[in-house]
Amino acid sequence: MFSTGHHRILSAITRLGPKSRTDLARLLGLSKGSISIFVRDLLEQGILKEQELIFSQGRPSVTLGLRSDAASFIGISLHTDPATIVLTDPHGEVLARHQIPRETDPERCFSLLAEAVQKVRRHAEPNIGLTTGIGVAQPGFVSRDRRICLASAALGWRNVDVASELSELTGLPVFVENDTNALILGEQLFGASGECPNFSLVFVGDGIGSTHIIDNRLYRGHHGGAGELAHSPVAFDLQNALPCRCGNRGCLETLASLQSIRGAARSAGLPSEIPELIGLANTGDPDALRILHRAGSALGFGLAQLVQILDPSQVVVLMDAALKDSVFSNVLRQEMEAHVLKRPGTQSTLILRSASNDSFALGAASIAAQHFLFGIDWI
Amino acid sequence: MFSTGHHRILSAITRLGPKSRTDLARLLGLSKGSISIFVRDLLEQGILKEQELIFSQGRPSVTLGLRSDAASFIGISLHTDPATIVLTDPHGEVLARHQIPRETDPERCFSLLAEAVQKVRRHAEPNIGLTTGIGVAQPGFVSRDRRICLASAALGWRNVDVASELSELTGLPVFVENDTNALILGEQLFGASGECPNFSLVFVGDGIGSTHIIDNRLYRGHHGGAGELAHSPVAFDLQNALPCRCGNRGCLETLASLQSIRGAARSAGLPSEIPELIGLANTGDPDALRILHRAGSALGFGLAQLVQILDPSQVVVLMDAALKDSVFSNVLRQEMEAHVLKRPGTQSTLILRSASNDSFALGAASIAAQHFLFGIDWI
Repeated sequence: MFSTGHHRILSAITRLGPKSRTDLARLLGLSKGSISIFVRDLLEQGILKEQELIFSQGRPSVTLGLRSDAASFIGISLHTDPATIVLTDPHGEVLARHQIPRETDPERCFSLLAEAVQKVRRHAEPNIGLTTGIGVAQPGFVSRDRRICLASAALGWRNVDVASELSELTGLPVFVENDTNALILGEQLFGASGECPNFSLVFVGDGIGSTHIIDNRLYRGHHGGAGELAHSPVAFDLQNALPCRCGNRGCLETLASLQSIRGAARSAGLPSEIPELIGLANTGDPDALRILHRAGSALGFGLAQLVQILDPSQVVVLMDAALKDSVFSNVLRQEMEAHVLKRPGTQSTLILRSASNDSFALGAASIAAQHFLFGIDWI
Repeated sequence: MFSTGHHRILSAITRLGPKSRTDLARLLGLSKGSISIFVRDLLEQGILKEQELIFSQGRPSVTLGLRSDAASFIGISLHTDPATIVLTDPHGEVLARHQIPRETDPERCFSLLAEAVQKVRRHAEPNIGLTTGIGVAQPGFVSRDRRICLASAALGWRNVDVASELSELTGLPVFVENDTNALILGEQLFGASGECPNFSLVFVGDGIGSTHIIDNRLYRGHHGGAGELAHSPVAFDLQNALPCRCGNRGCLETLASLQSIRGAARSAGLPSEIPELIGLANTGDPDALRILHRAGSALGFGLAQLVQILDPSQVVVLMDAALKDSVFSNVLRQEMEAHVLKRPGTQSTLILRSASNDSFALGAASIAAQHFLFGIDWI
């Protein structure tokens, strides 16, 4: 166990990259003596390592970096079937991976997951760090203490104590988080957005997920409902707005989710698989183009709302690789830019990224890593 | 000058109401001994007063409240012409008020304001607290240190050092803030929303302003652009969307601001003053009803976006009293409810409130009060 001082050093190095003892003292407002004591502990325990010499003014100084074998973390994604289980190092490198059917019976699900956790740990190289925890990313609502799945329509779960049950089977601490929240936490710890105190992430899948980091912390909203961009209205004309599964009409999800794109393709007598639809659009098929244009416009429209209301440093949009490289992306960028207020100075940046099979599992692993490195629950 | 301990006590009592020494020790995690010392200072300096006895378990305890004559604050609103100057007590009670023409020449403006500040201080009763500072609420962009007006289209100002110039003329510290931000800070300190860590405020005037408190702090956005709800898109169909002064089309402001309502009334050959238009709507005039319905719908639509993205505890909408009691309000509430995702548990509350002439000046005064009571810049 580390003290607050140890955790503050690990947090600074994780977010800002390798730092010298002098830099750390200045950044954290601590004496060089205290820094030296904390750093000595972290070197002795194999968490930090001394890296290259930096020559600037005065004596050359050694920078301190996080060791890849400082610890390892399990990330479990229950976002889709099959479930994905990864083992990562503290930099988010995947050391081993496994997939199993996503069972919806909780007991059976946890028992298969516990086996899979053993398997990835056995498959990994012998020289990795001690596994310190498990993160679970799952669709639905999760308790603030990251222990209980309160409700998940996709899994059919209500009040399932995921943390206790999986912890008992594996002997490791378990942290459960909503899947889209896990994605943004993974982006914050392992991705390129870690230095941004304020950014948003939108995931385009069968549904649409969104979530925000505000002031370096996950912002859940006052009633846990922040980031329901999926049900933000984009169609003003209710007569023509499409009905949504939430009971309202004209929600973003009725136009821009993969499910809605597939539905529109089917209705137009086109193939409903996304790559085929994009292939058709590339040949100039007007119906395929119309459907992808409308979906991209709707998402760009929703993102413009988000930027106007929150002004994040950047919006990271994660989506299917095929979709990312299609007309959908071009339209979404244009539509967002057309609707964002032009102001002097810098603006929110739009970053489009392909989602991989590992994205949610990596996000889950990042939560276990945050608990180990920062010692706090970034709730 | 107070220490952090004094300020923490004042902050707790301001936000949560009168408290006993025992309550304060528990709330602030300080020893009863430390609390007693800080409280004795604050009693001696005439900031706190001992109030009624509370009988619960153990010895009856005395609650401590903020004295109305602890201090007084000047609030200046440059939101509209004429400018309003108020003197308030720490509870937001207006002790004196004055209006002067809003000059756009900075030097002339500050000299008239300095005279008006003298006037309200002379007009106030003799037994009020010492005036400790001036807050200024003004349209446009203000520097983060609350000293400089960076740009104000309404006033025609660029890089005007409001704080230094007005401070030199009055001998008081001056804090400048964007007008809508001042409104929400006034609501936080003097209003009913002070206990909410997360809430949003929307002002419907000639334009539309909006701003957020997140985690008890004013959230400005990463580039200072949070709260540009006015330019959030509500019209998806760009062919029919109205052109906005920002260069885009279909912004909320083109449909729901007072200016846009007046414009639509004029185009329809109706009287363009809001009370007359509402009078006509009350008689069933279809054009007047159509205009107010469309404006209310657009605002409800924009508020639904805000709730879906941010999930504040409440959204306070401040507007003209006539508008508040009209069909506009009913439509806006219905449209917002129609577009907000129904979730189990509590939801964001919509609170409609009439704006008074004093609203912005009170917001400005609250900033000076925050500096006195909390000793920090809640930037």
